[in-house]
Amino acid sequence: MNRSTLTSKCPALAVCCVAAVASIHAQASGPVQKIRASAQFTQASTFIDGDYDRFVKELIALNEIPAPPFKEQARATAYLDMLRQDGLSDVEMDTAGNVMGVRKGPGSGPMVAIVAHLDTVFPEGTDVKVKRQGTRFAAPGIGDNTRGLALMLAVVRALNAGKFPTTSDLLFVGNVGEEGEGDLSGVKYLLRQGKYKDRIKNFIAIDGGDQGNITRGGVGSMRYRVIFSGPGGHSYGAFGLVNPAFAMGNAIARFAKLQVPSEPKTTFNIGAVRGGTSVNSIPSDVSMDVDMRSESCAELKKVNDAFLALVKQAVDEENGVRSTRQGKISAEPKLIGDRPCGETPLTAPIVQTTTAVVKSFGLTPNYSISSTDSNVPMNMGIPAVTIGRGGVSDRAHAPDEWTDVERKGSVEAVKVAMTIILAVAGVP
Amino acid sequence: MNRSTLTSKCPALAVCCVAAVASIHAQASGPVQKIRASAQFTQASTFIDGDYDRFVKELIALNEIPAPPFKEQARATAYLDMLRQDGLSDVEMDTAGNVMGVRKGPGSGPMVAIVAHLDTVFPEGTDVKVKRQGTRFAAPGIGDNTRGLALMLAVVRALNAGKFPTTSDLLFVGNVGEEGEGDLSGVKYLLRQGKYKDRIKNFIAIDGGDQGNITRGGVGSMRYRVIFSGPGGHSYGAFGLVNPAFAMGNAIARFAKLQVPSEPKTTFNIGAVRGGTSVNSIPSDVSMDVDMRSESCAELKKVNDAFLALVKQAVDEENGVRSTRQGKISAEPKLIGDRPCGETPLTAPIVQTTTAVVKSFGLTPNYSISSTDSNVPMNMGIPAVTIGRGGVSDRAHAPDEWTDVERKGSVEAVKVAMTIILAVAGVP
Repeated sequence: MNRSTLTSKCPALAVCCVAAVASIHAQASGPVQKIRASAQFTQASTFIDGDYDRFVKELIALNEIPAPPFKEQARATAYLDMLRQDGLSDVEMDTAGNVMGVRKGPGSGPMVAIVAHLDTVFPEGTDVKVKRQGTRFAAPGIGDNTRGLALMLAVVRALNAGKFPTTSDLLFVGNVGEEGEGDLSGVKYLLRQGKYKDRIKNFIAIDGGDQGNITRGGVGSMRYRVIFSGPGGHSYGAFGLVNPAFAMGNAIARFAKLQVPSEPKTTFNIGAVRGGTSVNSIPSDVSMDVDMRSESCAELKKVNDAFLALVKQAVDEENGVRSTRQGKISAEPKLIGDRPCGETPLTAPIVQTTTAVVKSFGLTPNYSISSTDSNVPMNMGIPAVTIGRGGVSDRAHAPDEWTDVERKGSVEAVKVAMTIILAVAGVP
Repeated sequence: MNRSTLTSKCPALAVCCVAAVASIHAQASGPVQKIRASAQFTQASTFIDGDYDRFVKELIALNEIPAPPFKEQARATAYLDMLRQDGLSDVEMDTAGNVMGVRKGPGSGPMVAIVAHLDTVFPEGTDVKVKRQGTRFAAPGIGDNTRGLALMLAVVRALNAGKFPTTSDLLFVGNVGEEGEGDLSGVKYLLRQGKYKDRIKNFIAIDGGDQGNITRGGVGSMRYRVIFSGPGGHSYGAFGLVNPAFAMGNAIARFAKLQVPSEPKTTFNIGAVRGGTSVNSIPSDVSMDVDMRSESCAELKKVNDAFLALVKQAVDEENGVRSTRQGKISAEPKLIGDRPCGETPLTAPIVQTTTAVVKSFGLTPNYSISSTDSNVPMNMGIPAVTIGRGGVSDRAHAPDEWTDVERKGSVEAVKVAMTIILAVAGVP
């Protein structure tokens, strides 16, 4: 998960009848109660209690295999072996580098994809050795998202120990490219091009902290590097020619004046600028890196359209006020990031089922909008939630990241995640 | 010489009586005629004709000692030896790295400084070997200003051969730091801190091409690196905080709208921008490199003041429209270049004397405003001109720079320069 924003507000409640939600929720809680009361659940729970040490061992082992951005392969290969050892079928690595395995249901029904990302934000050479202080484990990436990966493995084993049948097939995926420049590439591939793309009808990402938190909205983002180019020239001798730095400054000044709503939260940023060779030359190229985000697809489109228009206006203005005899200014906004926006309605069965499970464990559900792998299915209309990995963690994306693997909370988290997956997949 | 601008216009003529100039000129031409008619001049001229081969030899030797910006020492040391061999007294290197020697007059009168810069614009590792095609010598720096250095040595020998007494003492200087970032540092030291600073009453820089061209105005420039700093933060999580890139963009947009006169020529430029670490972070620092120039001290001050004011306005505006709860935006304009502006009036004896000499050799005087070592004395009120080294040269500051050392023109150039120096210094 990155750039998370936790909100307890629930926009959908404002537009649908509270009674209807309550009714849907009642429908969801029945199957959850049935699962939790089953003999299989008891059997799986007993297994989970005994599987704790393996969970801890795998958490450490996985974290200590570096997985920098775009360099997840070593960890992916190890994870692929673990999926196979856990008894999944059709274990493989796809073209994008995602690793996955299937737990088949009785028929050839729809499929639920359960994903946890392999990549971290940390560059090559980062010390990823786990430092233990009691149950407090500190290491870059240990919470986000090695704990999600380890949780998923524990869930697979528990499902098998409980011998649960499921209506849907379960596809467990350790995916690449969730963080930063990865731009959700692993899940984009999985859902847009992968072999199961037409079969995945529900999607669960394990990439949050507290299991009461249910991410059902995807903050979308658009990122550009805009290169402003012109003829360049001597600052004194060629004074009067168009200057790309002036065009860029004009664009930035216009951008800075944009009005965006605070709700749905919408943001924009100039993150970096560069260009020019010397103080006494009119630059031939300057560039800026731009990030825009919104909880709302409509607002993201609005800010994006306004941005592209103001770049054009700034370029036209510079070409209008200075000489173009040696050439004009042009600007090329190159898309360098595109995290699709999306939402799974509060009334969607996947949200209500997850809510029912969370409540059944005595947790308080809390809906959030964030930027996770679930953005991609949400944008495609595939019901999706991002759920927590449990336990207390902090300092994600910082070198002093840590997670607490205290036994009781850790085993409970496996039970919660297993129950969500079962309830979403359906137990006949 | 760098960034030269040659103009034949003569602003001073508009404000002073043409007849008065003519009268001053008549006063100047008498002594010139006397010098040229003297037995010493005949003797020196004969010497110059015979000294041509040494001039060529020294031109090549000096050019092949690299003198990159801030790394003039090897050439300076060699030049110091040559000044000593030419019979000057008090030969020494000063703290700035300038090398110099004195040719005393009969008393302890005022001093005329004659300077030629040692440095080139070319970086270390540039091939400075002279490629000869007949009398066409090609090499980086060969015209600007190795030819000036070689000319000066030939003048010193000719003065001695002619046994000319001079009213003023002559200080011959090979100076550092004329080009680019050197920022005229050698001459600034010489005139502001050097041991002769209070004695130099006239100043002649040898750093032009055609000897008809007399630089009597100094284009001033002010250069800044402005660093805009702020608290930084996450582009989404901390959205709403002040952003230094927005402040800088605002400043650039305001700067781009400044109105400056085309005459006296006044210019401004953003030459480079940089800063920020990632697209999804609000930068903590961004910077821009700014260059402003003018033929007029008053206009340079105007554009400089306007620039500093608009930087402040842009910073204040950013601090006003976004949150400063994590800290404010600040901007620090750091002066990275300061070439003082200045002018020697057309009516000044040094200009009229130079004009008379140039005319006496059948050349057409042409007054220009440029940026040379003479900027410094002009700004201090010390009468100064920059004169030509003679010969045909081209492609200064380019790797294919060349100069033609055709014999007739080369020896004539030494005579012109010698006569200017004598006339300015006075021959009793």
